[in-house]
Parts: sequence; structure tokens; C-alpha cells
Amino acid sequence: MLLSELERFAREDVGEMDDSSSIVPEVIAEAVILAKEMCIVSGLEEADQILNYFGLEGEQLVREGAAVGAGARILAIRGLARSILQAERLVLNFMSRMSGISTITRSCVDKAGTVRVASTRKTTPGFRSFEKRAVVVGGGDPHRFDLSSSVMIKDNHLKLLSLEEAIATAREKASFTKKIEVEVERLEDALKAASLGADIIMFDNMSPDAIREGVELLNRGGLRGRVLLEASGGITPENVADYAATGVDVVSMGALTRSARWIDFSLEIEI
Amino acid sequence: MLLSELERFAREDVGEMDDSSSIVPEVIAEAVILAKEMCIVSGLEEADQILNYFGLEGEQLVREGAAVGAGARILAIRGLARSILQAERLVLNFMSRMSGISTITRSCVDKAGTVRVASTRKTTPGFRSFEKRAVVVGGGDPHRFDLSSSVMIKDNHLKLLSLEEAIATAREKASFTKKIEVEVERLEDALKAASLGADIIMFDNMSPDAIREGVELLNRGGLRGRVLLEASGGITPENVADYAATGVDVVSMGALTRSARWIDFSLEIEI
Amino acid sequence: MLLSELERFAREDVGEMDDSSSIVPEVIAEAVILAKEMCIVSGLEEADQILNYFGLEGEQLVREGAAVGAGARILAIRGLARSILQAERLVLNFMSRMSGISTITRSCVDKAGTVRVASTRKTTPGFRSFEKRAVVVGGGDPHRFDLSSSVMIKDNHLKLLSLEEAIATAREKASFTKKIEVEVERLEDALKAASLGADIIMFDNMSPDAIREGVELLNRGGLRGRVLLEASGGITPENVADYAATGVDVVSMGALTRSARWIDFSLEIEI
Amino acid sequence: MLLSELERFAREDVGEMDDSSSIVPEVIAEAVILAKEMCIVSGLEEADQILNYFGLEGEQLVREGAAVGAGARILAIRGLARSILQAERLVLNFMSRMSGISTITRSCVDKAGTVRVASTRKTTPGFRSFEKRAVVVGGGDPHRFDLSSSVMIKDNHLKLLSLEEAIATAREKASFTKKIEVEVERLEDALKAASLGADIIMFDNMSPDAIREGVELLNRGGLRGRVLLEASGGITPENVADYAATGVDVVSMGALTRSARWIDFSLEIEI
Amino acid sequence: MLLSELERFAREDVGEMDDSSSIVPEVIAEAVILAKEMCIVSGLEEADQILNYFGLEGEQLVREGAAVGAGARILAIRGLARSILQAERLVLNFMSRMSGISTITRSCVDKAGTVRVASTRKTTPGFRSFEKRAVVVGGGDPHRFDLSSSVMIKDNHLKLLSLEEAIATAREKASFTKKIEVEVERLEDALKAASLGADIIMFDNMSPDAIREGVELLNRGGLRGRVLLEASGGITPENVADYAATGVDVVSMGALTRSARWIDFSLEIEI
Amino acid sequence: MLLSELERFAREDVGEMDDSSSIVPEVIAEAVILAKEMCIVSGLEEADQILNYFGLEGEQLVREGAAVGAGARILAIRGLARSILQAERLVLNFMSRMSGISTITRSCVDKAGTVRVASTRKTTPGFRSFEKRAVVVGGGDPHRFDLSSSVMIKDNHLKLLSLEEAIATAREKASFTKKIEVEVERLEDALKAASLGADIIMFDNMSPDAIREGVELLNRGGLRGRVLLEASGGITPENVADYAATGVDVVSMGALTRSARWIDFSLEIEI
Repeated sequence: MLLSELERFAREDVGEMDDSSSIVPEVIAEAVILAKEMCIVSGLEEADQILNYFGLEGEQLVREGAAVGAGARILAIRGLARSILQAERLVLNFMSRMSGISTITRSCVDKAGTVRVASTRKTTPGFRSFEKRAVVVGGGDPHRFDLSSSVMIKDNHLKLLSLEEAIATAREKASFTKKIEVEVERLEDALKAASLGADIIMFDNMSPDAIREGVELLNRGGLRGRVLLEASGGITPENVADYAATGVDVVSMGALTRSARWIDFSLEIEI
Repeated sequence: MLLSELERFAREDVGEMDDSSSIVPEVIAEAVILAKEMCIVSGLEEADQILNYFGLEGEQLVREGAAVGAGARILAIRGLARSILQAERLVLNFMSRMSGISTITRSCVDKAGTVRVASTRKTTPGFRSFEKRAVVVGGGDPHRFDLSSSVMIKDNHLKLLSLEEAIATAREKASFTKKIEVEVERLEDALKAASLGADIIMFDNMSPDAIREGVELLNRGGLRGRVLLEASGGITPENVADYAATGVDVVSMGALTRSARWIDFSLEIEI
Repeated sequence: MLLSELERFAREDVGEMDDSSSIVPEVIAEAVILAKEMCIVSGLEEADQILNYFGLEGEQLVREGAAVGAGARILAIRGLARSILQAERLVLNFMSRMSGISTITRSCVDKAGTVRVASTRKTTPGFRSFEKRAVVVGGGDPHRFDLSSSVMIKDNHLKLLSLEEAIATAREKASFTKKIEVEVERLEDALKAASLGADIIMFDNMSPDAIREGVELLNRGGLRGRVLLEASGGITPENVADYAATGVDVVSMGALTRSARWIDFSLEIEI
Repeated sequence: MLLSELERFAREDVGEMDDSSSIVPEVIAEAVILAKEMCIVSGLEEADQILNYFGLEGEQLVREGAAVGAGARILAIRGLARSILQAERLVLNFMSRMSGISTITRSCVDKAGTVRVASTRKTTPGFRSFEKRAVVVGGGDPHRFDLSSSVMIKDNHLKLLSLEEAIATAREKASFTKKIEVEVERLEDALKAASLGADIIMFDNMSPDAIREGVELLNRGGLRGRVLLEASGGITPENVADYAATGVDVVSMGALTRSARWIDFSLEIEI
Repeated sequence: MLLSELERFAREDVGEMDDSSSIVPEVIAEAVILAKEMCIVSGLEEADQILNYFGLEGEQLVREGAAVGAGARILAIRGLARSILQAERLVLNFMSRMSGISTITRSCVDKAGTVRVASTRKTTPGFRSFEKRAVVVGGGDPHRFDLSSSVMIKDNHLKLLSLEEAIATAREKASFTKKIEVEVERLEDALKAASLGADIIMFDNMSPDAIREGVELLNRGGLRGRVLLEASGGITPENVADYAATGVDVVSMGALTRSARWIDFSLEIEI
Repeated sequence: MLLSELERFAREDVGEMDDSSSIVPEVIAEAVILAKEMCIVSGLEEADQILNYFGLEGEQLVREGAAVGAGARILAIRGLARSILQAERLVLNFMSRMSGISTITRSCVDKAGTVRVASTRKTTPGFRSFEKRAVVVGGGDPHRFDLSSSVMIKDNHLKLLSLEEAIATAREKASFTKKIEVEVERLEDALKAASLGADIIMFDNMSPDAIREGVELLNRGGLRGRVLLEASGGITPENVADYAATGVDVVSMGALTRSARWIDFSLEIEI
């Protein structure tokens, strides 16, 4: 993360005159961060930068992406006691939020087999790059980063112009280096989008059966090979396997960022 | 929110060259934001600022803090169609995250009766002020904003100095305008902290019964009137009523920010 | 442009205490920006924001992208005389640099027929978004914005891993929403890249004849339809037509930003 | 350069999630930057800071300001391969733009003999300090940095107040630490400005003969010793010697920044 | 201080192209900072950061908070001569302003005995954290940092709502972690505020005798033990002892920041 | 002031969650800022920007630079009561600090007759542009803004190179647009500096008599007309007239910023 970001995050939690941490003596201490529940660990890279910023040394006891159980020792820390107290909450907040996302992502990835599990732009404002990175640590696909990363034609666009116009305009205006994705709510639109040159077709808010039928239609039309297919809308850890079995290449889930629990970690001073 | 923050949030989601939104014609459109599930609405003030930033007009159809059902129309929007598409996700992300927090907060506040329900510093880095505001909209107490807001002496401090030293140092070093709070894990420490002049005593990770006993001890010691009492650790929407019934003044819950669901809202272009 | 960017640009040119502009009386004046040479006009959107920032009104006398001759009146300005003097150089610098890029781009686009003319990342640090926009105004394709926009495998990558490994790793690690482009220096690599699933193949530093042969090879291999083809390296306004005639889809030219002249504009106060 | 500037420049080129560089293995590599054409090398100080930012070591193989031929090895780099790929374009863009300016500056300086060659404020917004530094590396004079650096009275001022008023106001309002420069388009104004106490007189858009006559006039009027004389407007590498021979102290040239070619450098990974 | 702050401060004093410092040879030099008058030294922590930023080594010859006489050697500096010249003024400005505040604070603290001496929000915009820290170095209490740190009900509030409403609203709206302070101008209001649960009562602009009477009233009402008492308004180094003798807990003085002299320090290059 | 500066200043004083101002009802109020002592009013331009930022209307009742007596009504304010409370301290801090500087400056200017009174770089870090502007409002000369504004050769330089070398290097390295000032401590150095082409000579820490002798020496040497003369060091409001009478053009005084009192203003809500 940029130093300017880190300074902003640290200032947010430490404030202007921290009398909470400064009451402890100027001694060197050791601490450890423990997982209080099973999870996929994420955010260690960020933790390392934060510790560094506060003049602390960190030693990763497990690797980023590791599956650990309750009680696992994750990160050993050494340095000035008051600096440990200042870094504590920021490190834990990063790890809790990011590990929560990596954990739910991993569980969905495991269920989806060879089908990719992708996240969305449903992220906390200002924190997207970390949430997307947590998806990657969990084995998921970050999907596009922002509105500029690729072109996506959604239902709201299609209230303003026709599918034909939308794809034609996108092909003309957007750089040839960007993929064009079309969100469809009716199966005939999938066929149309594929034949008009869309790179990715997203079946939005359909049942697994409907999507399976859509994939079949494209197969029969000889268009399946030209496009990547994505299922989206209402996919949860419970039904992801069903969606993954429809024949699509990708399932995308707002749930990766919206339904992720925050993992419980604690920092214990040991000396 | 500061304009510099808003520019940062907008840039994060829009990126450098948005060909997704610019494919639609330069027409004026109207849109509405709908709640897809029951919730306490929050984030309307931020939504308003974002819409403004994108040159759009917004009209709040319900008030911040209102309890609404699935399908409720929350916010009417009017302006350039492509600007609506650019503002959409940022507005929805603010409202989803904040309303989620307000919703869980309200439900706990309702269960806690006259006891305050407070949040913690367990917030998304860079987004704390909005998460704290969502707690307030839900009827909760934001608790201290950062390490500098008041003094809190926690278990990690007490590995480094004694309770007596900690309170004495805090009283000497910290401004008289700050309250001193002590986190206790044993009931005798509550008595000690109260008699040493702590302003707030937090019973950390104790059962309701243990806390009730602690309150009673302070009562008998004639110290109850001098301090505010807070219960914290492991409090959930399920057990918050039990903790609230122990005689404390405040229950604080990491769950307000950590276990909040993201509320599902959608933006529909209507013309 | 973001207000924070604009403040930075304005401060750079105005400095801390501008006694050059403040010596003129507090009167309202009118001014006009004139083109001193033939060009494609660009930067009017930015000019408008800058004028606004300085409290001035601007009226565009030609549209962005218009071809104008020497002496053409481009932009009428009205407001406080000293504010006009403060805005003058910043507006002119934007218009000069951007119009220069749009002008060379348009001339290459005209020669390339239906083949796209794209720019590169060879841009002035901190000014890329404006230089890319000038390319678009001139009718060109901005190409990828940064290293994250799409995956490009270049000669330096291929000193570190094989083409097969590079493409395989890119497909695995990068989001499915990104295209994968491979820069090839030998024709057999073009075939290999296409069959491994590259989305775009760039013929780097080859003669038009060699590229034509490459296109033919792909045609014969039945791979032409699967990929976009790009020619790059040493392409100038003089030879762009030759490269465009090779059968590629895109020619990319560092020259659009590196060889662009700065167009001469002047601001004349008229009252 | 400030770290905050460097972070901004690096982020502009690397973007949010760089899958282009991260596909290479985590190995240490060596690279060299080569000049592809004759030039005066500039931007090495900035290159060094950038390499450092990316955790790389750089060794300058020539000194800043050195004249080198095509093929010259300029800068050796060592470090993580993927970091080299991330730093590459930013370093090259700095060196290309800055060396181009230093190269044209040096050639003009060589032709101007003992007369100073100065640049103008015709620079890329946000990049002025680097462009001015490149002028200095080439042996030129940066001229004033911004509107606040010294007072310049130009033709547009003189449409708003008389020369007498302008100089009088400048002497009264501006700090005594600033020089006052007057741009003149008629020779009698040069005499007038000198006698009114201008520190610098700029002959704007005049032929060398006219300027020579102006210098002579000031000589005869006994005013030559009181002022510095500058020629400006339409001066190119082709005619700079003629202007330098007119008896002025300085020739200033927008061409140093506006007509500078971008020098071609390449970075080659060698291991 | 944040690096981003330090970069801003350094840029303010060094400017864009420092030809004042760069004329000295590239040699290592030593320098010392001397106090030119008696003072309490403050700002050494900031000086250290600034020296570091400029690549210089500093050795503190006295400790922060030390009382020194005219001629005392405060800080030894070693490094590149031109860097010393660049850092000089910024270091001296920090030390002069901060030591001035620490000096007046210490003198008031000495006179006030066991009563706390607190500062106010009457600080230089953008420099508050350093001015508050200087108060602390001098032995004073920083008081609240900003409007959010605690609740203060002042005379202007009481023109808009009654004291009862103000306290009730504050108790309801503000977090339980914040103290509530009430500024009173009449003694009966002190009694009222105390009985309504204010944590701190400030006697504003009263004579010592009036305040003494107020303290007595609270004593008699049995309310003295419940509140902290603060005297404010018109307190100077000359009369602070009188106010401290009234029985209050705190005297607060705008004079600590508003009447502080700037201490004279000089930096002498010694080699 | 830049909006980004203003946001920073406002955030510094308001903090994260202002429960002090938000307790008042949502009503429109009027307020007035009163001078509590005689002064030259300054900072009204900044006050206006701040009021605007908080959504308030301000009406200046006196002009910037006006001399007013105790009790004078300076600025009328109208708007939301809670916004007035939020803006209050920031506006007052600007006006107090700036008016203090303008007041001492005006008094020195009045004593110095036609001799300029200049400030120094002894300013509060981060607040220089406002302090320099206050000097100008008071009728003073801001002197150079930063190390880059002009070249100053001081005693510390002359420990590192000779006066001859220093002036020669400055003339060679610095732009011809900058003046060169030399600080001298011995009269013979004044003669030497003048004959070597210094533009300004500063007599540093000399008595009025010594300076008068230096002026005379330059007169006799026929060098007086070539240079501006400045007296500096130990000049106070008490002795400024003596220094002004020595024949110099400028007296510069650290006292303008270092010894300025903060003027007492108050904001009174009137409805």
C-alpha cells in the first residue's frame, strides 16, 4: 500500500494525542497474533507494512493463504511496547476483514471445482484493493477493478439504448484492449450478444436450470467457443456448486465481500 | 465527507477512462433506489453528497434512520444518464454497508432497553467515520473514535504495568478532559479501578452473572455512583438483552460492525 | 479532472504570491484564444474547468476535435482581468500539448483507413490521462492505461520465462476480464501465441512485409479469427499507411505522444 | 522529488493490480538502460529515486549531462525481476522527456556562446520542475519558475494599463527582492522601461536586426548597463545564433520544451 | 509528524529550485544550534525528524523540556553542508515557536502549584498538534484537541437553548466516553450545571474572588466532589497564581499560545 | 487558499464527530465578530472563504487593512447556528494571528517613513503564505518567500566558500531572473559585494551608526546606485526609526512575525 494511504489509516486509529498507549513504560515487548477461529489467513502483507511503519519487526508464522485452526499463532511481533499497542487495532482490522473474505472465497472455490469464482465491485469505499486482494488470496478472481477496467453492459444500460447499439458503441468507443461483457436476463439476448461479438456473457439472476439452457443454446448456435460465460445474482456458498455445474466459466458473487464474516484474531503481549 | 475523500472514493470506482458509462446517450434520466429487504436506512447524507459530486439531483423518499420493508423506494435521482451509471455503485456501497450497521444496531438497541449499545474500533480501515455514523443512525453510541479520544487501559497494558500505575499515569499524563476507562477481567479489579478514580469500568468477556455480581460489589462498596459500567466481549444480538439486564450502563459490541450484513439495494433507471 | 489535480496544476504556475497579475486594475476584461497554426483542437474540456476554477466564463467557439486553420478563434473568455492573466498559461499549456497529440493522431488515423491507431504508455509522468484523452479526441485508441489494464507479455518477460509459461501463468493469475497480449519478434511465436489463447498479438519492430507474412501464416493456420493483430515499433506518420495495409487490426505508435509538436495558441485580451 | 509525487507517478503507470509484471518468477535480474540515439543524458537523479522506490539498485554508467552516442550503456539495474518490469516505463519516460530537453538545450547553448539560453513557462502541467531541471542539465537557464518568481509585464498587461503605471505599480506592490521584467514590442518602449527602472527588458517577436538596433539605442541612451536584455519569440535552434549575436544577455526559447524530441532509450534485461 | 506533513513543510521553505543552498560545495559540515536566550527547549523530536528527512544526523545535547540559558548548545548536526542550509530555517522555526510555548507554560505551571495549567484551541491553523505538544513539554495540559474531543457548552450555545436543554441533549447525543463541560458566567449556573451532571464547570471571565465564591457554593451544595472546576478568561502569567488559589482544579490560558514569545535560536556552521 | 488546505484546517478544529456544535437546534442565526482591542484588521479574505466552506454568509463591516478600535464590529455572519459554532474558532484564529502581524507591521511602517519594512522566513511552518499576506496588508514587504525565490548568501555560506566564490557561483548557477543578496557583517564586505555585482546588500546585526557608515562608504565608492541596501538583525518597533534613518532602502524584521501579539476578537451570536 502507498505510504500516504498507510499514514491515513494509522492516523485514523491513533488520533492526535494518544494517551492510551503512551502510559506504558518505554520497554521492548513481544507479542503474538492468534486466530480465534478457523480461517484462511490473509492481510499478512499489509500487516507487515503496518508493523514496519510503527518501527516493529514482524515474523510470519504461517503463510498468507494458509488454512489455520482456532488458536493458531499467526504473526510474532517485537518492538517498543507502546508501538505494539498503537499498531494492534489497525493490523487486526486488516487481517479480520481480509481473512474473512479469503475464507468465504476459499470455501466457494472448493465447491466450484474448475469454474472460477469472482468477486464484484460491491466493496467498502476506499478499501477495494485490499478486498480484491483477499479474494485472490482465497483463490478467487478479482473481476474488473473499476468501471474503466472493461466494458460491462448492464440492465440499466439497456433501458437507454438497444443491445445492438450498446455493443456497437462499446466496440467503437472502447479501446480494443478491453473486453466487452454483456449482462443478459433473457436467453435470446445471450445468443444475440454472442453473435454481435461480446467477449463475456453474464447470466444475471437466473436459476441454474435456465443458465444450463442458455449454455446449451450457445452450444447449438456454435457460439459457445467465442465467449466466456458468467453466472451472477443470488449465488451463495450454499448454491454455488449448482451454478458452477451449469457449464459456465465463472460464477461471480457479491457475497464474497458482502457476506464475509470478520475473522476473530487477538494480539497478546507475551513479555 | 471532505471533497478530497469523495474524489478518492469516486476515482476508485470510476477509474481512468470509463467506457462503460460513456456508451449511453447524453440524455437526462430518472432512477430510483429500492431496498430489496427490510432494514434501517442509513447513508443518505453520503448518497446526497455523491450525487451532487456527479451533478445529479437526489430526493430522499424516506428519512435517514427509517425502518423500511422490501421494495421500499428510498431515493429518487435525476440527471445525466451516464452520471447516474457512474454514481450508482458508490452510492449503493455506502448505503449497503451503512444500512447494514444501522439495522443490526437498531435491533440491539431495541433489546437493550435504556442501556446504551456502543460500537468499537473494529472498523474497516479508512471507513470508520461512516461506520460510526451508521451506529449513531441506528440509535447506538459510537464509543471513542480513536486511541486519542479517551484513555482505555486494557489487558495488554496490565501485562506491562500494574493497575495502580496505569491509572496513576493516565491521570497524570492525559488531559483532564478525557475519561479514563479500565477493562477488567476480575471483579476485584473493578473495585480497585473504581476506588482509584476510573471513570468507566468495562467488564470484559464475562458472563452476565459474573457482571451482575460485579455491579453488586460496586453497589455494596458505595462506588457504583462514581463510575459508568460497560459490558463487552462476546455480546451478540442474541444475548444482548441478558447483558443489558445486568445493571451496566452500556454494552459494547464489535458485532455492530463485524457481523452486520450488507443490505441489498438496487438502482433502477425508470426513464 | 479532479479538483485536487487542478489545484496542484494551478499552484504550480501561479506560485505563492503572484505580483505579475495583481498589478492590473480590478476590471472585467474579455479575451480570446487563437490558433496560430492548423491543428485539431483538443483540451477544451480541461480549459473549461480551469477557467471555472479561476472564476472565469469560457465560450467554446469551435468543438473539441475540430480541424481549424491559423488564426481561428477557439475560445472566448470573460472575467476579472487578473484572473485571465493567471489562467492564461495553464490553459494554453493544456491546449498546446493536447492539440499537438490530437493533430498527429488525426493525421495518422486518416492514413490508416479502417485500421485503429493506438497510443502507448510513453507519456509524460502525471499527465497520462490527458494525453490519452487527446489521442481519443484525434480519433485514436488509447490502448491500455497502465500495467494493470490488461496483460502484456513483452520481450523482457520472455528472457525470464518461456512463452508457454508466460501465457499459462497469465491465464491462471490474471482476471478472466483482462485480455492477454503477446509481443512477438518472430513469426513462429505469433502462431504459438495464437494457439495458446492470446487475445492480441503484437508484431514488434518488424517490416510491413514481415508482418504481412505473419498475418498470412495465421490465416493459413486458421487462427486469424481468434486474435486481434497489432503492429508496433518504428511506425511514423510517414510509414503508417504501409503498416496499416499489412492486414493487422491496430497500429500502435509511441510517436503520437513522443513526436507530437506543441501547437501554438495565443491568448489576446480584447478589451 | 517528493515521495508523495513519486507514489502518484508510480501508481499512474502500475495501476491497481499488475498482472503483467507478476507473471514472472521471483528471481533477481540485471538490466541495463541503453540510449538508442545520440543525446545529452538527463533524468538520472529521478531514475535513481524511482529505482529505489521499487527496491532496486541502480548504477549510473555515465554522468548526468554527458553526451552519449547510440548504443551507450547509461544505467545498470539490479533487483527483483518483477520490480524491474514495474519501474521500467516510468524511468524511461522520465529519461526520454528530460534528455530530449537537455539535448536541444545543449545544442542551442553551444550556438549561443556566452549568451544565456533560457526556457519559458511553456511546460507540461505537473511536470515543470523536471522540465526546468532538464534545461539546467543541458546548460540552460530555467528562467522564472512561476508567476510569483519575478514580475513580468507583458503585452496583455499593457492593454490594461500604461507602461508607466505598470512599472510603478510593480515597484510599489512587489517585494524589492523580485526583478521586474518588461516585454516590449517597440524600441521606444525599451528606452522607456529602462529609464523607469525595469531590471530586464525582453524584445518580443522582433528580428535580430531590430533587436540589435534596440541594444544600440540603449547604449546610446546610457541605459545598457542598468538592464539585462532578453530576446524572445520565434527563436529556434536554427536562428538562435543570430539572436545571440544581437548584443542581448539572454535568448529565451519556448522551443526548449515544446520542440524537444523524446529520446529513445530501452531497458534490456540481461540475466 | 506524518511524512506527508513534513514534505509539505519542507517544500514551503525550500521552494522549487533552491539556488541559495546549492552554491556551497558538496562537503560534509558540522553545525550546532544555540539558544540565544533562557528558555525551556521544545521541538527536538520534530527537529530530529526534519534533519533525518534532509539526510542529516542530529545529536541532542539537552533533553526536551530542559531549562537552558543563553548560549547553551542544544543540538549538534552533521551532514552535507547544503542540506544543513536547507534544513536550518525549518528546524529553527519549529524550535522557536514550540520552545516559546513551553517556556511560558512552564513559568505558569510553576506559579500554579498543583493546579493544572491548560491551553485552548487558540492555535495557529495547521500547527495545533505541535503547539499542544509544546504545552505538554512545558508541563501543561493540552485540554481538548478539537470540537469532537469532548463536549463544551459555551455562552453562544446558551443563546440558542437553555442550560437544561443543552446538558440533556449533550448527554443523549454524545458518546458516554466524552466528558461534558459547561462554561458559566453566573454562579447559580455552576450549581445548576453540577446538579444536572456536567463533568467539568468552567468559570469564564470572572475575578478570582467570584470564582472562590463559586467553589464555596458548590462545596456547600455537596456538589464539589462531582465536578472538575476550571477557571478561564483573562488569565495571564501575572495573575495565574491568584486564579490557581481559588480552589479550582485547572486554569486554562489562551496566553500559552497567543502570548508566547518566539525563542531566539541560531544555527552556526562550525566546520 | 486551496480547498484542500481549507479542508485540512477545518478538520483540524472540528474533528471526527462534533457533538459540541450539534446539540444546538437547526435554526438560522446571526452573529458578529468584534474586535476587543485596537488593531489593523487582517484575514478577512480567509474568513470569507472559511464561512463559505461552512455554508455561511459573511458581510465585511470594515475593509481589510482598516485601523479599528476596541469594540468595532468587523464581520457580520448569517447561517445555520451549528455551522457558525463550527466555523467560529478557525475564523478567529486566522484573524487573530494575521491581524496581530498586520498591526505590528503597520506601526513599524509608520515609523520607517519611505523605507520599506520587510518580514523574514521566521514564520509558523505551514502558515507562511498567510503570515506574509498579513505583512502586506499591514503595508510591509513580504521579502523572499522561500530559499528558491532569490539567492541569499549568509554568514553560514561564507564559512564554506569565499565571498568572491559565492557571488560568482550564484551568478553562474542561478537564473538571471533572480536577485542576489549578500549578508555582510563587515563594511569592507559591503563594498566588495557591491563591486562583484550583488543586487542587494544586507547589513546584518550592526548598529545604526555602523550602517550609516556603510552607506556612506558605498556612496563614496560610487556603488550606492547599483544596489539596494537592507538593514537586519535586532530591529524592533522601538528602534526601527533609527535603522530607517541610516540611508538604507529596507529594514527587515523577524519581529513582524515573532513578536506580533494575537489580537483578541470574539464572535457573538446575536439572534
